[in-house]
Amino acid sequence: MGENDANKITLIPLGGLGEIGKNMLVVRYGGSILVIDCGLIFPEDEMLGIDVVIPDISYLLENRHLVKGIIVTHGHEDHIGALPYVLKELNVPVYGTKLTLGLLQDKLKESDLHRNVKLNRIKPRDVLNIGPFTVEFFRVSHSIPDAVGLAIHTPIGTIVHTSDFKFDQTPVDGEVTDFYKLTELGEKGVLVLLSDSTNAERPGYTMSEKVVGNTFEEAFRLAKERIIVASFASNIHRIQQVISTAYKYGRKVAVAGRSMANVMSVAAELGYLTIPEKTLVDLDEIVNLPKHRVVILATGSQGEPMSALTRMAMADHRRVEIVPGDTVIISATPIPGNEKMVARTIDHLFKQGADVIYESISGVHVSGHASQEELKMMINLVKPRFFIPVHGEYRMLIKHARLAEELGIPRQNIFVVENGQVLEFTRRRGCIAGRVTAGRVLVDGLGVGDVGNIVLRDRKQLSQDGILIVVLTLNKDTGAVIAGPDIVSRGFVYVRESEALLEEAKIRVSEALQHCEEKKITDWSTIKSNVRDTLGKFLYEKTRRRPMILPIIMEV
Amino acid sequence: MGENDANKITLIPLGGLGEIGKNMLVVRYGGSILVIDCGLIFPEDEMLGIDVVIPDISYLLENRHLVKGIIVTHGHEDHIGALPYVLKELNVPVYGTKLTLGLLQDKLKESDLHRNVKLNRIKPRDVLNIGPFTVEFFRVSHSIPDAVGLAIHTPIGTIVHTSDFKFDQTPVDGEVTDFYKLTELGEKGVLVLLSDSTNAERPGYTMSEKVVGNTFEEAFRLAKERIIVASFASNIHRIQQVISTAYKYGRKVAVAGRSMANVMSVAAELGYLTIPEKTLVDLDEIVNLPKHRVVILATGSQGEPMSALTRMAMADHRRVEIVPGDTVIISATPIPGNEKMVARTIDHLFKQGADVIYESISGVHVSGHASQEELKMMINLVKPRFFIPVHGEYRMLIKHARLAEELGIPRQNIFVVENGQVLEFTRRRGCIAGRVTAGRVLVDGLGVGDVGNIVLRDRKQLSQDGILIVVLTLNKDTGAVIAGPDIVSRGFVYVRESEALLEEAKIRVSEALQHCEEKKITDWSTIKSNVRDTLGKFLYEKTRRRPMILPIIMEV
Repeated sequence: MGENDANKITLIPLGGLGEIGKNMLVVRYGGSILVIDCGLIFPEDEMLGIDVVIPDISYLLENRHLVKGIIVTHGHEDHIGALPYVLKELNVPVYGTKLTLGLLQDKLKESDLHRNVKLNRIKPRDVLNIGPFTVEFFRVSHSIPDAVGLAIHTPIGTIVHTSDFKFDQTPVDGEVTDFYKLTELGEKGVLVLLSDSTNAERPGYTMSEKVVGNTFEEAFRLAKERIIVASFASNIHRIQQVISTAYKYGRKVAVAGRSMANVMSVAAELGYLTIPEKTLVDLDEIVNLPKHRVVILATGSQGEPMSALTRMAMADHRRVEIVPGDTVIISATPIPGNEKMVARTIDHLFKQGADVIYESISGVHVSGHASQEELKMMINLVKPRFFIPVHGEYRMLIKHARLAEELGIPRQNIFVVENGQVLEFTRRRGCIAGRVTAGRVLVDGLGVGDVGNIVLRDRKQLSQDGILIVVLTLNKDTGAVIAGPDIVSRGFVYVRESEALLEEAKIRVSEALQHCEEKKITDWSTIKSNVRDTLGKFLYEKTRRRPMILPIIMEV
Repeated sequence: MGENDANKITLIPLGGLGEIGKNMLVVRYGGSILVIDCGLIFPEDEMLGIDVVIPDISYLLENRHLVKGIIVTHGHEDHIGALPYVLKELNVPVYGTKLTLGLLQDKLKESDLHRNVKLNRIKPRDVLNIGPFTVEFFRVSHSIPDAVGLAIHTPIGTIVHTSDFKFDQTPVDGEVTDFYKLTELGEKGVLVLLSDSTNAERPGYTMSEKVVGNTFEEAFRLAKERIIVASFASNIHRIQQVISTAYKYGRKVAVAGRSMANVMSVAAELGYLTIPEKTLVDLDEIVNLPKHRVVILATGSQGEPMSALTRMAMADHRRVEIVPGDTVIISATPIPGNEKMVARTIDHLFKQGADVIYESISGVHVSGHASQEELKMMINLVKPRFFIPVHGEYRMLIKHARLAEELGIPRQNIFVVENGQVLEFTRRRGCIAGRVTAGRVLVDGLGVGDVGNIVLRDRKQLSQDGILIVVLTLNKDTGAVIAGPDIVSRGFVYVRESEALLEEAKIRVSEALQHCEEKKITDWSTIKSNVRDTLGKFLYEKTRRRPMILPIIMEV
């Protein structure tokens, strides 16, 4: 990328393609870089012990002097969650709406970064110049308030990024997607549209958030005793509906779960949540209220082991005990991978005697993402020359691309790409022009990127069949075994019941060592591999298991 | 249970309640026990390294002289899969239909049990006397042929067990559920009905297997090149439909995957699968055929890592490479817990250029279990006095119980129970009368039941943050450290990048040891716990991780 930089726009997704999460898009023009979103993703099952996963930002670090800022489109973890890590490496201005920055601020405080980062508040319809980019924000509906999409105007053309969106005709806060701005952009001409693919497999339209409110109404009307509602902490519209319905039916609301309390306090403070006076009560106060006057808003809609609802279900919550007569509403859909945990929570709630209202049997949740007809409408509103489906697993991107094709966008103008692929656009043409480093950086505790394939492979093996450690002490001069071999195992067999097996294992190891001594083998790595092979074979024969075998030699 | 044995029937579920899998029901009357089904269940995520889980049969072993036999209702793993383990402990006659025994025989061969077990073939409408029980079998529709339910006649009354069923009005083999027998039982009077709850959350009717055939027709008609169909090996009706459709469209069928080939050969040999001559070809032969003349039937509909379809998707199959133009049909629904693996397989297939037809976007699968309207019909046909929902997770049992209540069965005549609960029925009354040992026995390799909570807890800890082993050698007489401490870690950090950390850790351990020496602490367990605490605290501070810490002391 050199002299012709002024004739092209470069787009590079660093996250969010081929996955739902860790969204991050690089927009580069004329020696300047703008980054859109900076999210995290939760680890895959095989990433044992990993807390979160963030995008690999090598490309940004290599071009750090070009980066003008990071725009975050809304306050979900998959859009802002990597900032506490990324801003440590790359301290650039951050742009976002009021609520988004409010939620971000909370995170940055935890990482002790809030004093050093420049946060720039924007609002829908703002027009901002950042380097050579003129950025225009437009409101979209989503499952969190204050979400925006954006148009980036450059001399080459306009890039429109929907971010996550749906077309909710009756949003809870009354703030409808900015149809005028979208059509205006369409009329003036859009070079590239990047659009949310999360629900590209779903036909029809996504229902309005108001539908959930109606279900709440019905459930609140019927419930005779306590009501417990679990939802995503960040779904402030949903929380608003719980509070409004509670107020209507004369119930007080108590909050269980730290993240729920945090988000609610930020949202209320910034004016995104209206809580009628005296509606909120402390969780400890509910025992003093009649049961039909109580609603508990709880975290744990995903069956997360340490969350409020899960603890209640397991009869392990310090302050709330589920009793027959309780109505529990799980107002969320299980995120892929959480299905079994959610099902287990529901089962335990039933066992405690609660009645449980959950998604697969009633309308207590709607998605925050556009379905096929809305996706088509977005394309028809914006009328882009080029189309890039983003925010989705690969099959969703493919499906979204096919929808665009149905609407008449020529196949060669649609780009289904992967993270790290470089897309270049001139006024007339678009092409894939190479690849930069992109991938996932694993965060484990304080370690960012220090757990890689070798560590994960070891954890996997340890998790399957445990470990056997063989220790022995050799005489420094003669090489003779003077202590051991001792065998210690963890996660392999229940030792007390398998003493004979471990005794025999020790004999096999001794034989292997004797064999080494006879053959005058003194090289430690050969001795170790002899021990490993002998013991491995023996244990597999006896147990059909392959524990990790770790010989340790000391000498005195 | 003593003198009054002749006045009551005892039912004890040992598996299949509160879970989908490891079905096993004990029926006891007058000093005789009959067992219905003997299935396995696949391990939960947290059962690290476990292969399968089987019911705890302590109760049967304690009463082994009373057990007259085990009836298996069909050939699915959750009904016959525990037999290879159970028959080793309890060699009693087994009763089942031709196909069920054919599939079982195959399993017993692997366990070298087939010569010692007495298999008794029964067929629908057979009436059999086993001890004091008169057992009558009736045909039901399910996702495997030759499935039966049964009525057990005793002097106290008749117990009807539906086993897994649906009401398919157009089954592929033409063998409709035996409505006459069910209504006849209902007319004569049924004391207890136990019925399949798997789909109790689903409204309406389950669609006929024929619907999938229609989808195949459409897909086969449209496919221009190769077709690859993945399905459950045991779904012989489904396989029949693939073969029939292939034959109709002039395609040959090749099989990829050992379990698929095994089941097909058993089913074809026993007459449950009709394969037109020259339709089946070897997988190696397909390269010699034009692409539009090929169908590949593959295992892997659940995204299982080592299965044929998954290997193809990962470009890792020895004989089949996915190429653009291929149509892949995943004719199954992901079993809860497998959603992400299936999604990943679909994504990879798309990336290889295939077109993929899968459940969430089209009708390539129907369930083998009755939905709510069919469940209601079953109750209306059989008209039992008492009702026990079985085969389902707790919320499904609850839902099924509510359906029964809607139909007029009094609440006190409906029993939602857990594995191990003892139900006693006289002609007029039923009650819960205690509890026997029931639970899960974990199978890991050759070990049955030798992996318990301690081992699993260790595996869990190992999987999250790995292990640090601290070895040192002490002088036998003085107690002084004469070698070490050495630290070896696995699954904790990438050692090469964390040398400094591990060096510092060693210093901390040395300090702790010195402290022990100064305090004249010679007790090994105190020394070890000092090392563990010091190192644990240090590592948590530095990394926020809690690896297992294992001090090992040797002395010379």
